[in-house]
Amino acid sequence: MFTKTIRVRTQHEGDVIDLSEKVKQIVRESGIGAGLVHLFVQHSTAALTTIEFEPGVLQDLKRALSVLAPDNADYAHNTRWGDGNGRSHVKAALVGPSLTIPVENSTLLCGTWQQIVLLELDVNAGRERTIVCTVTGE
Amino acid sequence: MFTKTIRVRTQHEGDVIDLSEKVKQIVRESGIGAGLVHLFVQHSTAALTTIEFEPGVLQDLKRALSVLAPDNADYAHNTRWGDGNGRSHVKAALVGPSLTIPVENSTLLCGTWQQIVLLELDVNAGRERTIVCTVTGE
Amino acid sequence: MFTKTIRVRTQHEGDVIDLSEKVKQIVRESGIGAGLVHLFVQHSTAALTTIEFEPGVLQDLKRALSVLAPDNADYAHNTRWGDGNGRSHVKAALVGPSLTIPVENSTLLCGTWQQIVLLELDVNAGRERTIVCTVTGE
Repeated sequence: MFTKTIRVRTQHEGDVIDLSEKVKQIVRESGIGAGLVHLFVQHSTAALTTIEFEPGVLQDLKRALSVLAPDNADYAHNTRWGDGNGRSHVKAALVGPSLTIPVENSTLLCGTWQQIVLLELDVNAGRERTIVCTVTGE
Repeated sequence: MFTKTIRVRTQHEGDVIDLSEKVKQIVRESGIGAGLVHLFVQHSTAALTTIEFEPGVLQDLKRALSVLAPDNADYAHNTRWGDGNGRSHVKAALVGPSLTIPVENSTLLCGTWQQIVLLELDVNAGRERTIVCTVTGE
Repeated sequence: MFTKTIRVRTQHEGDVIDLSEKVKQIVRESGIGAGLVHLFVQHSTAALTTIEFEPGVLQDLKRALSVLAPDNADYAHNTRWGDGNGRSHVKAALVGPSLTIPVENSTLLCGTWQQIVLLELDVNAGRERTIVCTVTGE
């Protein structure tokens, strides 16, 4: 077992950060040839998934998330706390904080068009985000 | 590896149960200092995710789920089986039944505002829900 | 640790393939009695989840996904690449590519109405889909 933390800085709500290279690097560093790599984002207004890292698709994803949690809806969270990020919490809970990917020959078994991404969902810009990366196997 | 089952009783559709303390307790009991804890809910009308356990956000999440599967839509499942819980199955399949969280120094590496929750999505109240908890590591 | 690949052929957008029997078979073949089985679909226009494998519910799920990513919306991905499958990428990123299920006595600890399914979300029919199956435990 090998654990390492990825830290990335985001700028704006809706930022999508491609973590694939950083995760590949950690897998190589782990010395684990075959197994699984698990990722977990330690925040309630960010999420992890896989997607083709292509600007058009990323824009389409953003639109779909705003169907679930529109910008102009009334959020009970905002009313209570004045945070303004009710929609961010909702999107993050639905996409989810964790992801596990198989490893073989020290490489990720992702599809060609399948990149690992962090979704910055918070309305408040300029945050550092922490992702715990755990590699298990042989 | 250490496995234990969490059982909780829900009362109503839309109940959200904070499992964080129960999961922490199982991690301590496991004696595993560093690794992963996996959770799986054994039901097709309940789901697991992480969210800030704050009444406003939980209400906002409920609203978002009802965009996906509105109360008043026609469900083919209901027509076939007369169950009335078509929307429950749909929400559960989209949020998902499983979650994995890293463990360090025998504690969960969740963010401060990131609680582990069970979503009771079934329209039929008063159910016992079973979550299988598996801790792996060293 | 034991790894094996499942390959299935889909015919149409919206196909839902029940993988439960194939996964059970791999668990038996692994010789692992207690642990976890992890599934990962290596494609950006397909996804994995659990659901009751019943035609009504599957139709209801399809409708919910089309709320997120309607057939007739304008997709930036389609405009850029002329692929026509913008909605497929969006749905796949939201449902997610991975799933982990506990194993006990060499069987899956799924609920009775909880089948493991592959969702074929691509608009282009007749694809072979690959799912990497990793069993870990004792």
